[in-house]
Amino acid sequence: MKNWKHKHIIDLANFALEDYEAVLEFANRFKSVPTTGSRKLPALQGRLITTLFFEPSTRTRSSFELAAKRLSAEVQTFSPSTSALSKGESPLDTALTYISMGSDVLVVRHGSSNIASELASHIDKSGKNTAILNAGDGMHSHPSQALLDLFTLSNFFNEGKPEVKNLQGKQIAIVGDILHSRVARSNLWSLTACGANVILCGPRSLLPESFSKFVDAPPPGQKVDPINKRGSIIVSRSLKETLHNADAVMTLRLQKERMKKNQITDLYRYHQDYGINHENLKWCKNKTPILHPGPVNRGIEISSQIIEDDSISLVNNQVKNGVPIRMALLYLITSGKPNII
Amino acid sequence: MKNWKHKHIIDLANFALEDYEAVLEFANRFKSVPTTGSRKLPALQGRLITTLFFEPSTRTRSSFELAAKRLSAEVQTFSPSTSALSKGESPLDTALTYISMGSDVLVVRHGSSNIASELASHIDKSGKNTAILNAGDGMHSHPSQALLDLFTLSNFFNEGKPEVKNLQGKQIAIVGDILHSRVARSNLWSLTACGANVILCGPRSLLPESFSKFVDAPPPGQKVDPINKRGSIIVSRSLKETLHNADAVMTLRLQKERMKKNQITDLYRYHQDYGINHENLKWCKNKTPILHPGPVNRGIEISSQIIEDDSISLVNNQVKNGVPIRMALLYLITSGKPNII
Amino acid sequence: MKNWKHKHIIDLANFALEDYEAVLEFANRFKSVPTTGSRKLPALQGRLITTLFFEPSTRTRSSFELAAKRLSAEVQTFSPSTSALSKGESPLDTALTYISMGSDVLVVRHGSSNIASELASHIDKSGKNTAILNAGDGMHSHPSQALLDLFTLSNFFNEGKPEVKNLQGKQIAIVGDILHSRVARSNLWSLTACGANVILCGPRSLLPESFSKFVDAPPPGQKVDPINKRGSIIVSRSLKETLHNADAVMTLRLQKERMKKNQITDLYRYHQDYGINHENLKWCKNKTPILHPGPVNRGIEISSQIIEDDSISLVNNQVKNGVPIRMALLYLITSGKPNII
Repeated sequence: MKNWKHKHIIDLANFALEDYEAVLEFANRFKSVPTTGSRKLPALQGRLITTLFFEPSTRTRSSFELAAKRLSAEVQTFSPSTSALSKGESPLDTALTYISMGSDVLVVRHGSSNIASELASHIDKSGKNTAILNAGDGMHSHPSQALLDLFTLSNFFNEGKPEVKNLQGKQIAIVGDILHSRVARSNLWSLTACGANVILCGPRSLLPESFSKFVDAPPPGQKVDPINKRGSIIVSRSLKETLHNADAVMTLRLQKERMKKNQITDLYRYHQDYGINHENLKWCKNKTPILHPGPVNRGIEISSQIIEDDSISLVNNQVKNGVPIRMALLYLITSGKPNII
Repeated sequence: MKNWKHKHIIDLANFALEDYEAVLEFANRFKSVPTTGSRKLPALQGRLITTLFFEPSTRTRSSFELAAKRLSAEVQTFSPSTSALSKGESPLDTALTYISMGSDVLVVRHGSSNIASELASHIDKSGKNTAILNAGDGMHSHPSQALLDLFTLSNFFNEGKPEVKNLQGKQIAIVGDILHSRVARSNLWSLTACGANVILCGPRSLLPESFSKFVDAPPPGQKVDPINKRGSIIVSRSLKETLHNADAVMTLRLQKERMKKNQITDLYRYHQDYGINHENLKWCKNKTPILHPGPVNRGIEISSQIIEDDSISLVNNQVKNGVPIRMALLYLITSGKPNII
Repeated sequence: MKNWKHKHIIDLANFALEDYEAVLEFANRFKSVPTTGSRKLPALQGRLITTLFFEPSTRTRSSFELAAKRLSAEVQTFSPSTSALSKGESPLDTALTYISMGSDVLVVRHGSSNIASELASHIDKSGKNTAILNAGDGMHSHPSQALLDLFTLSNFFNEGKPEVKNLQGKQIAIVGDILHSRVARSNLWSLTACGANVILCGPRSLLPESFSKFVDAPPPGQKVDPINKRGSIIVSRSLKETLHNADAVMTLRLQKERMKKNQITDLYRYHQDYGINHENLKWCKNKTPILHPGPVNRGIEISSQIIEDDSISLVNNQVKNGVPIRMALLYLITSGKPNII
């Protein structure tokens, strides 16, 4: 990959179309590795990948670790419950430890929105070679999730050919707790970059009006938007209207743990107004696919029946596609770089 | 293995004699793999085994993971302390995540007695290929433990030839907290299937009289018992009588964490009445072997001296045999099935 | 290694010069393994290494596990948070479980000062083959840390040739919380063995005067000191004097979790008196290297600026050298021994 220019992957605000294309292309190749034999590719043999999850995670960490192993990398796992964090070590020093041990990529999740980029800056200033791959930082960004969503959608719109252009002109609804969602924020960058129009739908307390301008200006530290023409973002308070217009619907987990008091006072009421179930899916024009990044609160933002209805739920596909997407990301950011010591 | 017919292994109530024979035979083969070189067999290369332990475990999880690695499988570990369970995810959704990621076998432990079978039903209904291997569910069942006990006993009665018939007519005592023990329940199915007679021994509070009828009727969901003639089960309150008649003795951990108040008010008294030590082993007719599934409460259900007396304690053998038994189970339930994606 | 005579590595009090030489030599070889290809050596293929950390750890456990994998061993991880410890199992029984499972080396960390040696005695009495490698026990000993410190210092004094003789006559300062430090105690044995003179520096509450006699008599259970002539140990209360005379300085983490009330009442005052920063490093005669075993309390025993100043901080080198040192230890204690079953 001569053209891959990102040393770290912190968010998607600085991704150009060719970056999205590269990720989808490699993920599609990795997805079609035969499932007999060892299923391992030698690409990252001798590389050390460290998963550094300061926040708990089931699917993201497991998915990254499986992706790394499928590429023959050595995997190191850090988890706070067994670590020196209890002795008061800072996340920076924890990361530096693994860098000194020779880690090629730190896959980092942290509850705070700036840890991943601070680690990346520190690495760059000290001339080190390690790559930071953000696996979710506070409410800021979760790039690998947005990329697997993109892959899943693109593949849905054109089965077997998950290309960027499949999103062009599509109406993608994101419903629910946008305010607290790093997944939504990353999807806003990726979907609009690929020419999709996004309908954000949720109550005022979880979806401020200002989100319609989310991609209007490049984020701090970036001068120009690498995308010439992004899709639009509109904010809707009506689920009926949203579903009527949507070509695909993403629901989001109600992040009760990030909420201040009284943001949602009544979960039943929330499900009535913004929950996805077979009843309100009748408002869709066609058979519209449903995505959810997980973990799910069944019966709150989405009904159990939808989750288990494989004719419209793409949740299984999302999880499944997570592995080749993360293989692609690990491959792209290590490819062409010498091993570190 | 053309004849292996169990997609999942939830309990042993539906095991036929040929199933026990197959497990012992393969375990015995795997046990004799040379200990030089990599010690790995290629049988499960490319397979993904996930250990999904919602309850803590030392030996069972480690044993399954080692067994999977010895068969060249990829191993994925889920533990609640680092997972999205803290975000309120259900065990079903956690399991579905790993199934979507391509797991071939979920090795599941859960504190609740029906989770493993519910997962299996869900998988079957949705036409999926993943196998559930129950590694202990509530007080219901712990098949791999009972099978390693069977292997250990059978090998004790006929060193080097651990066959099912070695158990025929033997008197096996199970002493202690039967009420709370999934190990005891699984052993009741396997021992009586192989023609052994079981003497259950314990105080009334931990061993209701009704246990003597435990295998009389096939369990819910099963029409006929696949075993023509099972060994008998009797209940005894006298340790002296029990030891006098036993060809082998299993003691069980006093499961203090599962007990209601006052079931055992006096641990010293319990050891006097039902604890196994060198003093009361004099009641045995011969040198009778002692088994314990671990973890041990030394000085309560068994004395330290017995545990460390390798001339009668089979505890080390049980742990050692756990690895080939689990290799056999993993091999049998994946053998002949195509890889999953 | 015909001459390697230690079955277990519990502490360094019984290390002879040839033992230190062997460790440094093998570590130096392992350090120079090419970083392309798989980076794995086949030396421990088929061996099972178990990390048994009853106390939390980031770097030591990760370092041992990476070392074991680089030597192609199978690695098993035990951590209390997911284990049967919550059911009341003793550390001895936990260890015995892994020994029965076939572990060749137990890498043990425990908060209590005698667990590692008790495990080793138990193993020896029962005629077992498993090796105990102490990875930190209470305030007693942390041999792999002292050995990586030795390697790092030796390599600093003679780049590329980390030999024991490089330490001869050097003045090594150890500053801070000596009283609670197993790292300091292990370093006292290793540094004086190699002919270095140690200046211990700290307040009376964290550095009793008696430490000057620390290596005067062989420890309990050992008749003679295997070292003919050790370097000296002096105790100083003056950081200025200490730094003026030192050829290298180790600072130690202030172990707040091990302290009784009032041992340090004022962290600011502590940093003033014994913290290492660029200000007081001016007291050094030359550009003196700084070591720290981590995890660091930045701004207490050492300033952030020093930690990040690669021209004098050897912290990165220490972590980096930890891997080949642990490869050497694992190699030496398993080498020549048959696999265990």
